[in-house]
Amino acid sequence: MSTEGASTGPRPGTTPLTERSSRVAFARKLTKRQGREKAGAFLVEGAQAVGEALAAHRTGSLRVRDVFSTGQQQHRPLLEHAADAAVPVHTVTERAAAGLSETITPQGLVAVCDLPGASVHAALAAQPRLVAVLVGIADPGNAGTVVRVADAAGADAVLFAGDTVDAFNGKAVRASTGSLFHLPVARDRDVPAVLGACRAVGLRLVGADGNAAADLDEADRSGALSLPTAWVFGSEAHGLADPVLAELDTALRVPIHGRAESLNLATAAAVCLYASARAQRA
Amino acid sequence: MSTEGASTGPRPGTTPLTERSSRVAFARKLTKRQGREKAGAFLVEGAQAVGEALAAHRTGSLRVRDVFSTGQQQHRPLLEHAADAAVPVHTVTERAAAGLSETITPQGLVAVCDLPGASVHAALAAQPRLVAVLVGIADPGNAGTVVRVADAAGADAVLFAGDTVDAFNGKAVRASTGSLFHLPVARDRDVPAVLGACRAVGLRLVGADGNAAADLDEADRSGALSLPTAWVFGSEAHGLADPVLAELDTALRVPIHGRAESLNLATAAAVCLYASARAQRA
Repeated sequence: MSTEGASTGPRPGTTPLTERSSRVAFARKLTKRQGREKAGAFLVEGAQAVGEALAAHRTGSLRVRDVFSTGQQQHRPLLEHAADAAVPVHTVTERAAAGLSETITPQGLVAVCDLPGASVHAALAAQPRLVAVLVGIADPGNAGTVVRVADAAGADAVLFAGDTVDAFNGKAVRASTGSLFHLPVARDRDVPAVLGACRAVGLRLVGADGNAAADLDEADRSGALSLPTAWVFGSEAHGLADPVLAELDTALRVPIHGRAESLNLATAAAVCLYASARAQRA
Repeated sequence: MSTEGASTGPRPGTTPLTERSSRVAFARKLTKRQGREKAGAFLVEGAQAVGEALAAHRTGSLRVRDVFSTGQQQHRPLLEHAADAAVPVHTVTERAAAGLSETITPQGLVAVCDLPGASVHAALAAQPRLVAVLVGIADPGNAGTVVRVADAAGADAVLFAGDTVDAFNGKAVRASTGSLFHLPVARDRDVPAVLGACRAVGLRLVGADGNAAADLDEADRSGALSLPTAWVFGSEAHGLADPVLAELDTALRVPIHGRAESLNLATAAAVCLYASARAQRA
């Protein structure tokens, strides 16, 4: 079926795969974390993200196993890219595509990709100067947005530590808008091991903490932000736990000049990572 | 019914208002923009936001008309604050509260507040140094998050211009986490009038534009960010339209150091507003 079903669109004589086909049923399991970990694969949805995945496939940094398409005209160029890269393209029914989608309005285009197997050590191998570490982040949209911000700020890696949401959750992949394919993203449940690995490559461990005594602007004026830094971000609800804070070199708060109680995770991460990026480039 | 129904919780002999009571039916209309504009009122949901609304009521900057509660024990202190401020508190059924809620897990606490009637001119009356202008923003969560970020960065006002989502939409109110009550928020569909009002009070009009020739760091080094500034943010999908860009003093892009295509609206606004806040305070 893989050969016969592979095409760049619905052709006469090609029967679209339904949700009952074994290939679609396999892919559907990847909407759950357990399914992703068992299969070593994850789903990427929509033209922008599938395009980024195929670009990563061509450079060898990611393997795309399969692409499923309902055969919409506007996806043709992407499907031709996939076929050129020897990635099997399968025409599926609208209903099969919807079963692989986590959005309300499925785009009818989904890729199955190998989970990147990067270890924390591998992610930190290339003398990083700016890294984001997420500890205990629960919301996949927030996690994906931080990956996007880290990429934009020129970070060298994003590390998911402890009980943080899966970086390859569909919502996280979508919120990262392709950035998941741009920089090494690794995870390890052992928070002290992740922090130790950062320290071992010369990164200063700086926690973002709304209750910290020192603020970002003071650190900026002191020159401290220009040092190689791993920014450590805690959960949306509870921030960084005391045992994590105790392992850091320092903690800084984003100054609140008005009367807001706090910033949300993604906006705080944007301010912190861009402050380091600016200081490191000044 | 308003006198008999007012209490700080369900007491023996108090019949909770149902969704069919005229007071609850009136409030329910406020979940729609048309209903809000007709009644000159909006809804605020949950303990944190209702607490902020009551605090604003006490200072006279907002009027809270009514509070609806399912009578949960943990809301008692807030309900006593309301009663102390002569705000009528009404016990309602769970179902009535759910009908006023736009969240999946209603907290059973909703306040009806007067829509602030601040004009753009009034919002700019106090010699502002930092203002955020939203033009054509469609997503209420994004709009509310920008209000929160603007408050945190110490902005003096947020202006909703043109076809921007209603600032008093339930999702926008929730995303602002109380910041909507901290600084003047005004709207006007006439974009040139809003920009003209900003210019008239001495604000430099700076657009955030991913395609701008100059970047934020260059503007920072030149000292330009320390000037009184109105940051103008465009729609998530299309950015700022050319006729708007033509009216601005300049446009700046947040530098993208990595391979991300762009930042999302809220994170870009955070980086821009905090850059101005830091420069203005340096």
